[in-house]
Amino acid sequence: MRKLLITTLALSAVASLVTAAEPLPSWNDSAPKKAIIEFVEKVTEEGSPDFVPPEERIAVFDNDGTLWPENPVPFQLAYALDTLKKDVEKKPELKKEPMVAAALEGDFEKLLAGPHHEGLLKILALTHAGMTTTEFDQSVKDWFATAEHPRFKQHYDQLTYQPMQEVLAYLRANGFKTFIVSGGGADFMRVWSERVYGIVPQQVVGSNTRTKYELRPSGPVLIKTMDQLFVDDKAGKPVGIHEFIGRRPIACFGNSDGDKEMLEYTTIDNSRPSFGLIVHHTDAVREYAYDAHPKSSGKLVKALKEAPKRGWSVVDMKNDWKQVFSTPPAE
Amino acid sequence: MRKLLITTLALSAVASLVTAAEPLPSWNDSAPKKAIIEFVEKVTEEGSPDFVPPEERIAVFDNDGTLWPENPVPFQLAYALDTLKKDVEKKPELKKEPMVAAALEGDFEKLLAGPHHEGLLKILALTHAGMTTTEFDQSVKDWFATAEHPRFKQHYDQLTYQPMQEVLAYLRANGFKTFIVSGGGADFMRVWSERVYGIVPQQVVGSNTRTKYELRPSGPVLIKTMDQLFVDDKAGKPVGIHEFIGRRPIACFGNSDGDKEMLEYTTIDNSRPSFGLIVHHTDAVREYAYDAHPKSSGKLVKALKEAPKRGWSVVDMKNDWKQVFSTPPAE
Repeated sequence: MRKLLITTLALSAVASLVTAAEPLPSWNDSAPKKAIIEFVEKVTEEGSPDFVPPEERIAVFDNDGTLWPENPVPFQLAYALDTLKKDVEKKPELKKEPMVAAALEGDFEKLLAGPHHEGLLKILALTHAGMTTTEFDQSVKDWFATAEHPRFKQHYDQLTYQPMQEVLAYLRANGFKTFIVSGGGADFMRVWSERVYGIVPQQVVGSNTRTKYELRPSGPVLIKTMDQLFVDDKAGKPVGIHEFIGRRPIACFGNSDGDKEMLEYTTIDNSRPSFGLIVHHTDAVREYAYDAHPKSSGKLVKALKEAPKRGWSVVDMKNDWKQVFSTPPAE
Repeated sequence: MRKLLITTLALSAVASLVTAAEPLPSWNDSAPKKAIIEFVEKVTEEGSPDFVPPEERIAVFDNDGTLWPENPVPFQLAYALDTLKKDVEKKPELKKEPMVAAALEGDFEKLLAGPHHEGLLKILALTHAGMTTTEFDQSVKDWFATAEHPRFKQHYDQLTYQPMQEVLAYLRANGFKTFIVSGGGADFMRVWSERVYGIVPQQVVGSNTRTKYELRPSGPVLIKTMDQLFVDDKAGKPVGIHEFIGRRPIACFGNSDGDKEMLEYTTIDNSRPSFGLIVHHTDAVREYAYDAHPKSSGKLVKALKEAPKRGWSVVDMKNDWKQVFSTPPAE
């Protein structure tokens, strides 16, 4: 216990140093950086009318397009396609399935057709269900250790945005709890969220389905199914926040119309001070430039239009960020 | 920030004092107390082969019958019945509904009949759905402020078990994260879990249904529905743990066969050291005595039989606890 206490003291000292240094060094001194710092200073100043106690300092972050890229396709889709290719090598008869064929041909329009995106669900069922959670975790780990981003030629998990890593660290140093709230699969993200973002599994909210518990001779397992699918996107994000966090956030970071409802839920009619921010992809040279017509996900029209009215900060990636990636790619 | 740092230091000092004092003062010096302390000392000793890093020190607690009583009925059922009575006063035509009539007559057998307990679901739909989460929270708050336990004549939330409150505090002082994993409704428990147990909403795992998001002129709301019901009991408990925590616990505290699978998931074939404990209700004088034939919930047969084989500690409430309730009832 004495050692734990010393560790706690040491961590407090580190936290103090982190905040003593200039926060957000990869951000230019433009409006979004100023707005983040002003908000954090306001809610952490004891005695101030805007003070928010630490247990209520909940910050939520979208992942794809907010903490790392979603181009040329969201990384989980790249995982699904690579896994599908490996599965087809082992079981060539899978190719007879029209949706598998569409996926292998990159025909995303076909996969996303229909009110419930039946094709995509089929691919997810093939690559994300029917195995134990342990088997799935291992498969995701193996993929991240080997797969490379087609443009940046790095492992996918090396491509986090340095300015956003700094926001995560800055908020945590100021007593915030940081959560991911993403349309991505919770099981997929929890494999690497702690290593990549310092976010523990219980602070990752994502899309999910039910698992099924079995006590096998080898021990307890949970089998992944496609039952009771929950899509943590758009109006599903406030639902996911309520279900998993059970408290309204006071800070929300997103990048697309998929984050609009979560931004609303955080900032409109909140009894506490609140903050919303949108990462606008404006940098085709260092990353990508898109909003109204993205090639895959990440459409940003409605939320961008709402931003001035709602007081949400909008990051112009090209002009507000000194550096984009945590590990600059050798492009 | 300086003030936050001082607060952190002060909290560390308090944690140190708490553990410096004799832990678990309301427990007699019998086997379960010794087992708890031995386990905690083992996993917190840095450099020991049994050391578990703080982020992996996940402890899960059943609620009804483990942290507070479940007699004469689980407190949430008492809430539902009281709420139903108030609703019937306002809308007498509700009495024509056979399941409402059964509930008002206390005919639990009828409510629990059928493979999906249709009667109980009907009552839950009437009392737990169709309103906003804010309205539901207020209704639960009002009930706890006024309703009294029929035998102990105290507010329900005053009836927590003092020895278990001490286990929660002892584990937290040793770097554990304490979670509730209960068959009770997550929305119901989160209203008071922080005040009563010091457990923040995001560390409460319970039964739930989906909510529905709406942006109303007055602001964003979530409407409670009965869609995609998840029952966090029996084999549902490991499922809930995976879904909400995303990591296997190393310590599990329960009291009934509803906790058997969660005890298995925690202790069987876990790569880390682990601990399981069952509270056996043996004290008809100070609380209740039941196991094989409980009057409402809390049947304990299978898990009790498994306990010696699995190495789970069994608390004999009558002999192992010096004091039962945190606020001793004036019975």
